[in-house]
Amino acid sequence: MKLADLPTPCLVLDRSILLGNVSAMVRALSRHGVPLRPHMKTAKSIEVARLVTAGQPGGITVSTLAEAEYFSGHGIADILYAVGITPQKLDQVAKLNAAGAAVIVVTDDLDTASAIAAHRQPPRVLIEIDTGEGRGGVAPDDYLLLEIAARLGPYLAGVMTHAGHSYSGRSIDDMIRIAEAERAGVVRAAERLREAGHDAAIVSMGSSPTALHAESLEGISEVRAGVYMFGDLFQAEIGTHDLGSIALTVLTSVIGRRPGRLLVDAGGLALSKDHSTETAPKDYGYGLVLDIVGRRAFGDTIVRRAYQEHGVVEADAGHRLDLPVGAKLRIAPNHTCMTAAAHDRYYVVDGNEDVAAVWTRVNGW
Amino acid sequence: MKLADLPTPCLVLDRSILLGNVSAMVRALSRHGVPLRPHMKTAKSIEVARLVTAGQPGGITVSTLAEAEYFSGHGIADILYAVGITPQKLDQVAKLNAAGAAVIVVTDDLDTASAIAAHRQPPRVLIEIDTGEGRGGVAPDDYLLLEIAARLGPYLAGVMTHAGHSYSGRSIDDMIRIAEAERAGVVRAAERLREAGHDAAIVSMGSSPTALHAESLEGISEVRAGVYMFGDLFQAEIGTHDLGSIALTVLTSVIGRRPGRLLVDAGGLALSKDHSTETAPKDYGYGLVLDIVGRRAFGDTIVRRAYQEHGVVEADAGHRLDLPVGAKLRIAPNHTCMTAAAHDRYYVVDGNEDVAAVWTRVNGW
Repeated sequence: MKLADLPTPCLVLDRSILLGNVSAMVRALSRHGVPLRPHMKTAKSIEVARLVTAGQPGGITVSTLAEAEYFSGHGIADILYAVGITPQKLDQVAKLNAAGAAVIVVTDDLDTASAIAAHRQPPRVLIEIDTGEGRGGVAPDDYLLLEIAARLGPYLAGVMTHAGHSYSGRSIDDMIRIAEAERAGVVRAAERLREAGHDAAIVSMGSSPTALHAESLEGISEVRAGVYMFGDLFQAEIGTHDLGSIALTVLTSVIGRRPGRLLVDAGGLALSKDHSTETAPKDYGYGLVLDIVGRRAFGDTIVRRAYQEHGVVEADAGHRLDLPVGAKLRIAPNHTCMTAAAHDRYYVVDGNEDVAAVWTRVNGW
Repeated sequence: MKLADLPTPCLVLDRSILLGNVSAMVRALSRHGVPLRPHMKTAKSIEVARLVTAGQPGGITVSTLAEAEYFSGHGIADILYAVGITPQKLDQVAKLNAAGAAVIVVTDDLDTASAIAAHRQPPRVLIEIDTGEGRGGVAPDDYLLLEIAARLGPYLAGVMTHAGHSYSGRSIDDMIRIAEAERAGVVRAAERLREAGHDAAIVSMGSSPTALHAESLEGISEVRAGVYMFGDLFQAEIGTHDLGSIALTVLTSVIGRRPGRLLVDAGGLALSKDHSTETAPKDYGYGLVLDIVGRRAFGDTIVRRAYQEHGVVEADAGHRLDLPVGAKLRIAPNHTCMTAAAHDRYYVVDGNEDVAAVWTRVNGW
């Protein structure tokens, strides 16, 4: 099967680029001797999980319990569910763990810690630490840290943090500085727990930019990262990788044409309405337009507007877009996690137009 | 089953509000004696299709071939696929039509018209007319209109237009003016075709705002509209309905708390990254926060930021948000079509907390 034969819109995953991105992360972390617990929130695919856990301890991170169920059903036991748990969700975690999984949960809340400890089958727990993002987590020096730990008792397994504010960084120096704050904060929290007599074997940090750029990972037991696998325009803009390292694109067909403009069948659902490059140095609208082989054949031609099923492609000055209805293009996304989520499968290629495999995804909750 | 028992995030569809919205559209169109061909791109559900086609001729509009397949499989034959067709997609249309469907397609392209006429089993076709949106379609007076019609020959069934620029209207007067331009333009195109000896039985127009506010539908054979069924914050802002008429919300759980702020488990995937109210009179961020029964108990408390699985809820001044982790809220979306698309089912209520039914959706392509 060739790309030209596929129904559009659909996801194209270039395995050769994916493998390059995976190697880059492995090289970055091997400098520190720290293992990776890849975050599967982007790929949501067992085939990708097998690639990114190769040579690593084998544990993964997930963002939904649907992912936890899917990956444990495919034989991955060690799973960190990295979104704050609620008491109601503990039964589903217990069910997965009774069936052989070892799902670890996360909290930053006193009452939730009590509910976990009182559950008939408590999972292991990491306390979430805020190292500057200001989303979830307790500060490393907060008195709450020790109170939550006391309530969790034997179920406490360590600490985790996510420097999501690295996405606001715009230089390698920014990333190095944020990575060091992330490392120092979560290690400080682990030390406080140990001083108070608690176990804190797991000291987990990570975001793709800080995982790649950290100068020290001293005291860290594992790193989490996800978006680096596929990459996207926003990550290229903030220096996580270059433009040629975007493994995931949306294959689309031309459905209408006017001078200097095309309509394509990838709109806001197929691409997502994420417009994160709006705040980056370069605004790519809803995606950068490539040819069917993935080459940047049209300069800065982008998807300027995104309706539900229509994308409006505007030609970069000096580039002709004289394509017939039915012609196929590929679109590099702003934010690969959001774009992938509208689709149920990947059509896998190895740098050419031949579809080498079809890999499934687990969506929803 | 109660709403409090549901896994989160998930979609809640209030049937009592849905029925009110359906009645409002039927009343608006019955003034003109023009039937409705409801657009199922928002609801994508056979149960909703049955409600909105009741008392109408029974035809529907769809935005994907996956919808066409799903609805024809559920016994709806008369289907307008309202996104420009490509030659490659004609085989799938032919297959559906051979199995008993009567899928009508849309084009504004000469070469595509030739490809349709040359197909072994051509569908009926509407020519898309641009009545001011500037997305797809030929202008009513464009010479191309008659050329396309000539190539389609016996497969030409009429004309269609979509005044999507009504979404830029901000007053009832705007909507009345845009609706009249939409009507007059598509009727003019139909008249030109008839003068040239062509059949143009179908003269189809519509968007929710223009369908509701049109003062005349003279010469129109059918109206299309979709988002009116569920409504959303953006449609409330542009006067399609009031805030109390939003039938679709996302049920979410509190997963973290800080003074004046909550984290919830509905983020950019569960809500979508659509931020269309940013350009409306009132910016609702990524959604308006309601209590579990759907009441506006927290004033203008909104989802200010949306990460993949985390929503950051900011309290409206003067409203307390003292809720425990695990507490449930409902979130009214900016753009209901985009929000619904991340979910595979509706939990249906009738104005209370009891789940009366579960309705499925067809997503993807």
